[in-house]
Amino acid sequence: MKEFIVKVEAVLSAQSDTNFVTSRQPNIEVTYGGIPGDLHFGLTRLAGSREKMYKRGTEIFNRRQLTLVSIEECEEVARKLGIPHVLPEWLGANILVSGYPEITTIPVGSRFLSSNGVGLYNEGENEPCIGPGEIIAAQYPEFEKLAPRFVKAAYKSRGIICSVEVPGNISVGEELRLILA
Amino acid sequence: MKEFIVKVEAVLSAQSDTNFVTSRQPNIEVTYGGIPGDLHFGLTRLAGSREKMYKRGTEIFNRRQLTLVSIEECEEVARKLGIPHVLPEWLGANILVSGYPEITTIPVGSRFLSSNGVGLYNEGENEPCIGPGEIIAAQYPEFEKLAPRFVKAAYKSRGIICSVEVPGNISVGEELRLILA
Repeated sequence: MKEFIVKVEAVLSAQSDTNFVTSRQPNIEVTYGGIPGDLHFGLTRLAGSREKMYKRGTEIFNRRQLTLVSIEECEEVARKLGIPHVLPEWLGANILVSGYPEITTIPVGSRFLSSNGVGLYNEGENEPCIGPGEIIAAQYPEFEKLAPRFVKAAYKSRGIICSVEVPGNISVGEELRLILA
Repeated sequence: MKEFIVKVEAVLSAQSDTNFVTSRQPNIEVTYGGIPGDLHFGLTRLAGSREKMYKRGTEIFNRRQLTLVSIEECEEVARKLGIPHVLPEWLGANILVSGYPEITTIPVGSRFLSSNGVGLYNEGENEPCIGPGEIIAAQYPEFEKLAPRFVKAAYKSRGIICSVEVPGNISVGEELRLILA
């Protein structure tokens, strides 16, 4: 098993029923289903455009419990778009890490383990959609067509979705072992 | 998305707390966690030798809710071992299908969908272990070293583990759409 160390640069949650934009927290509690109170929390959720094999609105198991992005990929997407920053808040990310630049490319089934026992399981790439692009576009009104350009620029570098394998607490500044599948 | 049709040749469950050998049923109910009453049922389970990144006995999310094997691979393993049959019961399998011979090789994230809405999600290869080998060896005492030989022969053809994405009922004889990831 190949192992790496990544550093938790920020933990964030969306304490809203409607707005996916996240805000920084000193730490987050994760449990089966995700972060209690977060927009994406739940053991189940309703199928959307990413699960075209189900009728929209079908109740399905929730694999999109948390999203995780890397500082390096956020900077790369910003560079491609020619803007100063792409912040994890705007992507609705829950965990921002550094130390493994191309985090979106890690295999499904890879794990992030904290020293106090938390286990997160990589459920795969988070496919870019227009929502975060619109948030980014609103930050930089002087740039044209940022929303659709984001979808292209973030392809394969928009981070991953994770489910919780072992619950617990994750804090800013701690290190996680990344075990590749 | 590549699609195939497989036929459900048998559905089985292990209605025991200790014995993984399954027995045929006319139909099975699947829900989040697997088949209620089955040995492997549960939203969580205890980490074992397959999850060496966790201390043995750590409570983790249960991705091994159901196991699925193909008739074709069972026959192939029997042929390699030089024995008449490898039955799904002996492997502790919950679903036996036909129509897609190398079922163990389908990508993680592939789905099986029934016409009445059930969705099963492929969590990956079921790595062969000695237990089923010992059951097979007990069936054919005239053959030598069947248990360890099974582990080798079944490598990459021992079927897959699935989690339940949408609950419901699965019956013998019905067809499932296999959607490759």
